[in-house]
Amino acid sequence: MRALTVIPGEPHSGSLTEVPEPLPGEGSLLVQTIAIGICGTDIEIVEGRYGSAPQGRKHLILGHESIGRVLDAPAGSGFAADDLVVGVVRRPDPVPCSYCAAGEWDMCRNGLYTERGIKGLDGYGAERFRLEPAFAVKVDDELGDLGVLIEPTSVVAKAWGHVDWIGRRSSAWSPESVLITGAGPIGLLAALMGRQRGLAVHIFDRVRSGPKPQLAQDLGASYHGGDLSAVAHLSPDIIIECTGATAVMADVMTRTAPSGIVCLAGVSSGGQPINLDLGDVNRRMVLENRVVFGSVNGNRAHYEAGAAALARADRTWLSRLITRLVPLAKWQQALTREPDDVKVIIEF
Amino acid sequence: MRALTVIPGEPHSGSLTEVPEPLPGEGSLLVQTIAIGICGTDIEIVEGRYGSAPQGRKHLILGHESIGRVLDAPAGSGFAADDLVVGVVRRPDPVPCSYCAAGEWDMCRNGLYTERGIKGLDGYGAERFRLEPAFAVKVDDELGDLGVLIEPTSVVAKAWGHVDWIGRRSSAWSPESVLITGAGPIGLLAALMGRQRGLAVHIFDRVRSGPKPQLAQDLGASYHGGDLSAVAHLSPDIIIECTGATAVMADVMTRTAPSGIVCLAGVSSGGQPINLDLGDVNRRMVLENRVVFGSVNGNRAHYEAGAAALARADRTWLSRLITRLVPLAKWQQALTREPDDVKVIIEF
Repeated sequence: MRALTVIPGEPHSGSLTEVPEPLPGEGSLLVQTIAIGICGTDIEIVEGRYGSAPQGRKHLILGHESIGRVLDAPAGSGFAADDLVVGVVRRPDPVPCSYCAAGEWDMCRNGLYTERGIKGLDGYGAERFRLEPAFAVKVDDELGDLGVLIEPTSVVAKAWGHVDWIGRRSSAWSPESVLITGAGPIGLLAALMGRQRGLAVHIFDRVRSGPKPQLAQDLGASYHGGDLSAVAHLSPDIIIECTGATAVMADVMTRTAPSGIVCLAGVSSGGQPINLDLGDVNRRMVLENRVVFGSVNGNRAHYEAGAAALARADRTWLSRLITRLVPLAKWQQALTREPDDVKVIIEF
Repeated sequence: MRALTVIPGEPHSGSLTEVPEPLPGEGSLLVQTIAIGICGTDIEIVEGRYGSAPQGRKHLILGHESIGRVLDAPAGSGFAADDLVVGVVRRPDPVPCSYCAAGEWDMCRNGLYTERGIKGLDGYGAERFRLEPAFAVKVDDELGDLGVLIEPTSVVAKAWGHVDWIGRRSSAWSPESVLITGAGPIGLLAALMGRQRGLAVHIFDRVRSGPKPQLAQDLGASYHGGDLSAVAHLSPDIIIECTGATAVMADVMTRTAPSGIVCLAGVSSGGQPINLDLGDVNRRMVLENRVVFGSVNGNRAHYEAGAAALARADRTWLSRLITRLVPLAKWQQALTREPDDVKVIIEF
């Protein structure tokens, strides 16, 4: 079968190659791949800046945002042939830490977790893959192939779940507004879940044209394009930072209303020193009870919460998040950013 | 009666002066002051860098860490003559925000709160003061004059309360260790509450001698004196930052174990730009689910939690936190830092 492989750490090593069929030991469900979604992490891996191959191997099969159809499922697995499924990305440590043992592998404390398509385990970017039922999430037929958005939505569902929890440190927490920085797929899906919570949603992104402003407007959100001065008048209760840009992070750390919460959901590269008045950041965080927290990945509960959020969303709006469909043979196009990209999908 | 007054914003304006007796409108409890504790905020106010006088007035009576004995209490107030009491510092907005209305004035969202001895209300640094019963906390006779530590302990009780709450965002949160940076009164009281939680407690402070190392040791905590390299080997679950120093803040933001929590409880001055690799901070916060939050002040519940923590503590150890007792006539000595100071008290 064909698979999209890469040699982690080696730039330009991505290729579409023949690989053996997945082994039964990789999971009792055999799944025919429909599509994979591409995100910034895939691009980092293809550029040789992230990722690791399975132990003892040189190549890694790429792809962690999945959608596929079950070809074969054992009786009693809870799955049957023709079910649409998505694979969970992260797996607990072989010797689980206390978090992994509790099913919260997204919070893993010892860093020994693995991730399909990213860290030590082959991904879903092959014509067929195998899944353990415990790491397979059933997709509603009505959502169909848009289920490929469940993995990024799981990331957002976790971020919102932690915002909700942390907010309840005060019995009077009753947020009215959220600012999302970055109108990529994570940002727009965070905005969707913000609207579903009944919040006033503001979206900031550096672009002023293309599909993003309209996607925001059709969600009932306010769109602010350009530089950070576009949001200088806002002091929302919540900020979900999805750009990973250090200048944006520096700005949002103290931009909320007092007692506000900032979730960092976008990953920066290191090696970006900036000059920051950390004394002022401290003073405003302390005197106004601000919280800044990072959030990565999701566990099974977050995939289910993400699937539920997508099921409640307008499917036409969701389908417009997918701005390019690239056939497998032209996979390289999917890994090159274009200005109007939101979510790019490789079709198998 | 004599009172310690200052003209906020005007350095060197502190003086011991005759002022009128407190007016009945300031509260139905009349209290004879036993002592006030001095903290960094008092020094900032006396240096003209913080604080505001009551509306329409030039002078502010200093003092927010109080202990006094009730002289007169109305029937049904819950208090009686001879009760030992401490006054709560912060008062809700005149037109309460949602937090103030819920009794969580420590989380006030609109900044219109007032604070006895700090912001818009006279403090407790007079021979007598008045208190509303709702803002008076009864002190156990066994704790006695050590009740002057209740106010700083309320700050610490809130910090710990928020750490506990935020930690429970994960069902597997089961912290084992805490690092306290700064062995002043707030740091040592935070260490006390860490020990009461059964945690391994590490205390960092730049000093290597004086009373702090022994106070830490007698609490069963590990003391690390010198520069930050002294704690470079630690990755605790929790950090409570009590120095307000930007170099320490920069260090601790990513020093916890993954999924760890940093509470900023020390206030910096602004205007301290440093060169910081914020990209690296972001990456480590996101990929390892770290939380950094600021915490200020306490509401009534935190005073009660603080009083309960002090009631469980060894009173000899607590009394050793008070390293200088200064008579009122020599109040200026109390507002000048000395190398071995932990808590300095002015006796009335």
